[in-house]
Amino acid sequence: MTFDPGQNELIVGTVCVCLQEAEWHCDEFTKGACFSRGKSEEECQNYIRVLLVNGNRLFTCGTNAFTPICTNRTLTNLTEIHDQISGMARCPYNPLHNSTALITSSGELYAATAMDFSGRDPAIYRSLGGLPPLRTAQYNSKWLNEPNFVSSYDIANFTYFFFRENAVEHDCGRTVFSRVGRVCKNDIGGRFLLEDTWTTFMKARLNCSRPGEIPFNYNELQGTFYLPELELLYGIFTTNVNSIAASAVCAFNLSAISHSFNGPFKYQENSRSAWLPYPNPNPDFQCGTIDSGTYVNLTERNLQDAQKFLLMHEVVQPVVPVPYFMEDNVRFSHVAVDVVQGKDTLFHIIYLATDYGTIRKVLSPLNQSTGSCLLEEIELFPPRKRQVIRSLLILHSRSELYVGVRDQVIKIPLKRCSYHKSREACVGARDPYCGWDMLLKKCTTLEESVRMSQWEQSISKCPVRNVTVDGGFGHWSSWSMCSHSDGGGSAGS
Amino acid sequence: MTFDPGQNELIVGTVCVCLQEAEWHCDEFTKGACFSRGKSEEECQNYIRVLLVNGNRLFTCGTNAFTPICTNRTLTNLTEIHDQISGMARCPYNPLHNSTALITSSGELYAATAMDFSGRDPAIYRSLGGLPPLRTAQYNSKWLNEPNFVSSYDIANFTYFFFRENAVEHDCGRTVFSRVGRVCKNDIGGRFLLEDTWTTFMKARLNCSRPGEIPFNYNELQGTFYLPELELLYGIFTTNVNSIAASAVCAFNLSAISHSFNGPFKYQENSRSAWLPYPNPNPDFQCGTIDSGTYVNLTERNLQDAQKFLLMHEVVQPVVPVPYFMEDNVRFSHVAVDVVQGKDTLFHIIYLATDYGTIRKVLSPLNQSTGSCLLEEIELFPPRKRQVIRSLLILHSRSELYVGVRDQVIKIPLKRCSYHKSREACVGARDPYCGWDMLLKKCTTLEESVRMSQWEQSISKCPVRNVTVDGGFGHWSSWSMCSHSDGGGSAGS
Repeated sequence: MTFDPGQNELIVGTVCVCLQEAEWHCDEFTKGACFSRGKSEEECQNYIRVLLVNGNRLFTCGTNAFTPICTNRTLTNLTEIHDQISGMARCPYNPLHNSTALITSSGELYAATAMDFSGRDPAIYRSLGGLPPLRTAQYNSKWLNEPNFVSSYDIANFTYFFFRENAVEHDCGRTVFSRVGRVCKNDIGGRFLLEDTWTTFMKARLNCSRPGEIPFNYNELQGTFYLPELELLYGIFTTNVNSIAASAVCAFNLSAISHSFNGPFKYQENSRSAWLPYPNPNPDFQCGTIDSGTYVNLTERNLQDAQKFLLMHEVVQPVVPVPYFMEDNVRFSHVAVDVVQGKDTLFHIIYLATDYGTIRKVLSPLNQSTGSCLLEEIELFPPRKRQVIRSLLILHSRSELYVGVRDQVIKIPLKRCSYHKSREACVGARDPYCGWDMLLKKCTTLEESVRMSQWEQSISKCPVRNVTVDGGFGHWSSWSMCSHSDGGGSAGS
Repeated sequence: MTFDPGQNELIVGTVCVCLQEAEWHCDEFTKGACFSRGKSEEECQNYIRVLLVNGNRLFTCGTNAFTPICTNRTLTNLTEIHDQISGMARCPYNPLHNSTALITSSGELYAATAMDFSGRDPAIYRSLGGLPPLRTAQYNSKWLNEPNFVSSYDIANFTYFFFRENAVEHDCGRTVFSRVGRVCKNDIGGRFLLEDTWTTFMKARLNCSRPGEIPFNYNELQGTFYLPELELLYGIFTTNVNSIAASAVCAFNLSAISHSFNGPFKYQENSRSAWLPYPNPNPDFQCGTIDSGTYVNLTERNLQDAQKFLLMHEVVQPVVPVPYFMEDNVRFSHVAVDVVQGKDTLFHIIYLATDYGTIRKVLSPLNQSTGSCLLEEIELFPPRKRQVIRSLLILHSRSELYVGVRDQVIKIPLKRCSYHKSREACVGARDPYCGWDMLLKKCTTLEESVRMSQWEQSISKCPVRNVTVDGGFGHWSSWSMCSHSDGGGSAGS
């Protein structure tokens, strides 16, 4: 799912896509080739895996029956295809493989995905735009070791990638670690060494663990949410699928990530050596370039260093040592965060999709000494009809949360104050969105209140739970056309 | 708890011990010294931690207000003390520290315990008997790294110790590993090198994990039970206390343990090197000795090797890759195993003490392809009055299980067939102890049955559970005297 702020439209990619009625099927020949390679009817469809708004264009890629392709479409008329290019290295072949992609303002596409049919060649790949295409070194487990890509962000000089992968830096059995990787946006690759390959790729481990004499690690990053104004990243982490289910939310400052990238590397001389810290030859590296002789515009990293120093020694630590929120016997799959102006302060509300199809609404800790509160658990479906949540999108401007499931999108208004009928219920809900308006004598949002001084809100402790409230949500309407003032087609809403 | 087969008496060590009415208090001076070092009233008692039957003697040690002492008593008259020696290196100072000890037939005491007041000097220590006292190297984390000792066994040429300790052989954060260690009983220590120190100490990791792409490890050994006839060791393993509670039962053949000890060592040249396998200079080492010149009776291990090769490279694998029994959200603390003759075959019944004070009765898998069955959970206490289980002792000869709690011992008869009143209930319980006697028309043990061919038992699948049965256990009687035909005192029964 993505949102077109210009048209105020939600764009949803579904199987053999339907975008403003723009159907995007795979052709029978491609499907046939897919079947002939042993894939099933279900796999040999066109699963939309990239959906990026880029100015007045929509860039979208689909698995297209294990033959990924991408199209550029007019945002206001999604049936209008400007060009169609190969989806290789931009979109996975296999609909089950994770990938992430972004387009920078200068038009480069950064994608992290499996690059081949079998999924054994993962890469962070740059293409399109005006800069040379670059990738991570192929079949080199020190660069990427069976990664699962989670998210990517364009921040200042760098593009950041969040993923999990098999740890390489220890010998105590196979373990997955969570990572943040980054590359310089002005990287043009190496000369003779690292040709067509990043010279600025580095990665660091993200730590999210329950502290203790022997910390309990939530090793596997599943989702992130970045708040650019605060330079703060929320991550959801779980245990391995083979372990007992447990999840945690940790928040990381961008400065902590930079701190790790500015520090020493972790380096193993050879397979008989231990992994040891190695001083960073370019501390506080900000993608500076050198212009001398044949090395015009190369970044100032030494190419030998760029080839051998990939992993940072220091682990990125979260804002506080204890995770913001932890829960056993559940796996969180998606996260979205809203920043809410309460009566006294700003609150962070964390929305967590659970693996059994509900949404947890959690109040982030107010300071380093308090804990988080579970405010409510939103049931999306009638009992015994729960579905897997496939995407979660928050629209801060409209205070709405969109939850994508297999065949529908559920819209949840985030401000639902009017359901609290009494002052006790309103204030007792400890919901930062709501307060009791003493003049109107009803539960309102801050904007709806007559006067802030007469608007009562008390978020000092967690609400008493075990109360089921009918959310009063309506049924989801059927897909309908949008009408545009500027012509163009229609979109599902 | 221990059992005196000669007198058919159960001997129970309690605080300020009461053994056949033999009270063993700490004196006021010792208690005062204990208080003056900052210990509490509760800590400054005499906790019996060693209780070993040795011929017609009972060897027992107590923490004695952080001044451990040991006594040798006449088994038939526990008030008769033959000698009293220091408990140092035989019994922990701190009642909370784990220890284990055994006496061999030739009279040596092998103890694994913390050797000092602070508990920072753990050792496996041999004393008494006719051989020189020996210990593991002091303050050397490659020998023992903050161990918790679990159990010890005297098997053939070796004494085996089971424990858990902080792993040294990796650099991926602090982790506890489970170990089996062994020493040769004929070890007399080194000359010049390793004086008064074992020259035959080796240890290996015990693996108990849920298999998978990334195995889930039950790292921490909590209890063992050895079946000497089968050379089979049952171990109970849990996750770390800081992790989500989970427990598993794994069984190991002695041959698998020997296999690891006969294979390569795991060795780290220096702190900048990786841990690598190193060929075993003495494969199939059976405690052979050399008799040449000054090295009379030294074991044939080279002393330099004995100092640097301590850890085996190969992990001891259980009988089958999947644990015999696994359960989440519970920690097992003690285990006992009974081997039961059923109608068609021998069955292993595993009794597991849970951390919340119940006993699980589990049928061990019959072969490599079947799983285990939870046969029943025995509630020892009325609701909300559960107590921590401190010891578990099985008497195969009497088919009784003894459960020690803070102030009492609970006796559970293992064969309780008469509680099943119908044929359906009897056969449906899938209890290897019981079958339906078609002649007597009642549920009986195999011994009680009239004719084996008319005794019906069907242990092909697990019983249907969720049925609460009143075990019909009586109240525990008050402590009473035993009368001995051969004179002597009295024991709690």
